[in-house]
Amino acid sequence: MELRQALQEKIDNLNKPKGSLGRLEELAFQIGMIQQTLSPTLSHPVHLLFGADHGIEREGVSVSPRCITWQQMVNFTRGGGGVNMFCRQHGFDLRLIDVGVDYDLSAYPQILNRKITPHGTANFRYEPAMTEEEMERALAVGREQVDAAAAAGCRIISIGEMGIANTSPSSIWMSLLLDLPLERCVGAGAGLNSEGIQHKLRILQESVALAQKQAALSSSGEPGERLRFLLRYFGGFEMVAAVGAMIHAAEWRMVVLVDGFIMSACALMASRLMPSFMDFAIFCHSGDESGHQLMLDRMGAKPLLHLGLRLGEGTGALCAYPLIDSAVRMLNEMGNFDDNEITKYF
Amino acid sequence: MELRQALQEKIDNLNKPKGSLGRLEELAFQIGMIQQTLSPTLSHPVHLLFGADHGIEREGVSVSPRCITWQQMVNFTRGGGGVNMFCRQHGFDLRLIDVGVDYDLSAYPQILNRKITPHGTANFRYEPAMTEEEMERALAVGREQVDAAAAAGCRIISIGEMGIANTSPSSIWMSLLLDLPLERCVGAGAGLNSEGIQHKLRILQESVALAQKQAALSSSGEPGERLRFLLRYFGGFEMVAAVGAMIHAAEWRMVVLVDGFIMSACALMASRLMPSFMDFAIFCHSGDESGHQLMLDRMGAKPLLHLGLRLGEGTGALCAYPLIDSAVRMLNEMGNFDDNEITKYF
Repeated sequence: MELRQALQEKIDNLNKPKGSLGRLEELAFQIGMIQQTLSPTLSHPVHLLFGADHGIEREGVSVSPRCITWQQMVNFTRGGGGVNMFCRQHGFDLRLIDVGVDYDLSAYPQILNRKITPHGTANFRYEPAMTEEEMERALAVGREQVDAAAAAGCRIISIGEMGIANTSPSSIWMSLLLDLPLERCVGAGAGLNSEGIQHKLRILQESVALAQKQAALSSSGEPGERLRFLLRYFGGFEMVAAVGAMIHAAEWRMVVLVDGFIMSACALMASRLMPSFMDFAIFCHSGDESGHQLMLDRMGAKPLLHLGLRLGEGTGALCAYPLIDSAVRMLNEMGNFDDNEITKYF
Repeated sequence: MELRQALQEKIDNLNKPKGSLGRLEELAFQIGMIQQTLSPTLSHPVHLLFGADHGIEREGVSVSPRCITWQQMVNFTRGGGGVNMFCRQHGFDLRLIDVGVDYDLSAYPQILNRKITPHGTANFRYEPAMTEEEMERALAVGREQVDAAAAAGCRIISIGEMGIANTSPSSIWMSLLLDLPLERCVGAGAGLNSEGIQHKLRILQESVALAQKQAALSSSGEPGERLRFLLRYFGGFEMVAAVGAMIHAAEWRMVVLVDGFIMSACALMASRLMPSFMDFAIFCHSGDESGHQLMLDRMGAKPLLHLGLRLGEGTGALCAYPLIDSAVRMLNEMGNFDDNEITKYF
């Protein structure tokens, strides 16, 4: 019997009316297919947190100043961030990776130094955020971190980010990859008012207009080339590293937990570069950022949680972990109609 | 400074943009107010599972036969039910209480014998489900179990049920307490088809019509008397015990986790008998049962999860526990802007 059918039969024969564990049954099916087994396991969960600064921050598109990026990275080394407490709660191995934070963090050995540049990306209002070579190095850092997680026994990985202003490139990726007007993709980030949002929108529109003068962005070009252009023209180093990590985690057949707006934009990019990526992704949270639910709808992704979180760091993904654990436990621990003398009532 | 204000200030001063942990911040505030402290704790979580049979089951209003009630109660003693695995996962002390299962369960010492009658309630299509004295005994069992939980150190309690056909009395409570037509309150239960739902609706309409001939159901009567009449005329013993437990848990200032459709109907009843009950209740899950979301909307309750669960047993409440734990950890473990040299950026 084919695994797909065997897995569905196992789920249907558990001690419950068919389908009565709803989304947990869908998750169990997905994870069984990812691991190609009727009895999946979630070992050594890892949370990768990539941090970097963005040239576009200089344009006042964010309510927070760029110094928050390094300050929060340092705060994470002390255990006091949102991401720390959720990692402790759910047993995630937290790894902090500096791929271009605009600050010398060498005094903090808990932060892995993988700076692509010392100060973060260039300002895409005037020029591409990074070169091709920098993009390749950022993708490679993502892959390297997934290999390290795999070596530690990781079969479920979550990816988060710290990078002031990174809703801006995320909105642009969403707009250009889903062919949606920027107005529908731009929101308040960590707390802009409506005037601030209008300013952000204008800056991003100007940036996209400039980029569109480049041949590689035209839809007539080779699709892979266009994707790589978008990746490096607007991306932050932490976002490109996340895309590299997501794709490589799928290659390792890991379960990939996708957080909020920024990580969903990275997952969207990953799914264009590797269409089967969606089979490995679990979308964990739909946040308040305007456009996030629209992006998920267009991707056919149904998020597990709607808690109004907008902290970033991967916290929405971490909060959903117990549900994924529940789904796996259902497959492995729940009795079935054969071994418990129960009338099969559905 | 008043606690309410001090609690909000503590939450706002944690290491994050204001409000960025969304529902978790609301939960933290609610739990702080319940325990009257800035640093709440969730000790010894208990899950009470009340089981009983229903006279109305004889009318074919459920897809499952009544023997499922006792078979599942026995299954829970073996650890193979949905409720067992979620209790193990989240460290809940599971207590099984027979308040009127139509089967002799004395061979199973893990099931506490608190039978109100040996075979469950009478059939409310023809007569009240229980007498006043039986209702008082069922309420007392609920209180007794909460006292026992409190004695074990419990500060957070979840309540579930096992009772084939208990969506029927729940729909009637919803209809009569919220003044909604029965059609909007009746659904498929564990899996009726549309013909089955029509039959169920007709039986329930007839039952309500008969009950309305009794003076106590008229809205002109004393409100408390009308509530007690509804409680005993339609309620199952497991539902009345749950109402008693909910009210008494609120008197103990416990956090009360409310599960799906049936337990929400019990919470609705509890909130009418004790208006401050809502301050102690956390609504955990909105299920697929038609009318559940409507009931929650009318109660002003925002459920934490939407996972399409319809298993009962309290599983929706248990699945939400880690989010409540997260909220409490946020208050106790997250750094703030004063002790981490971070620019307060919002």
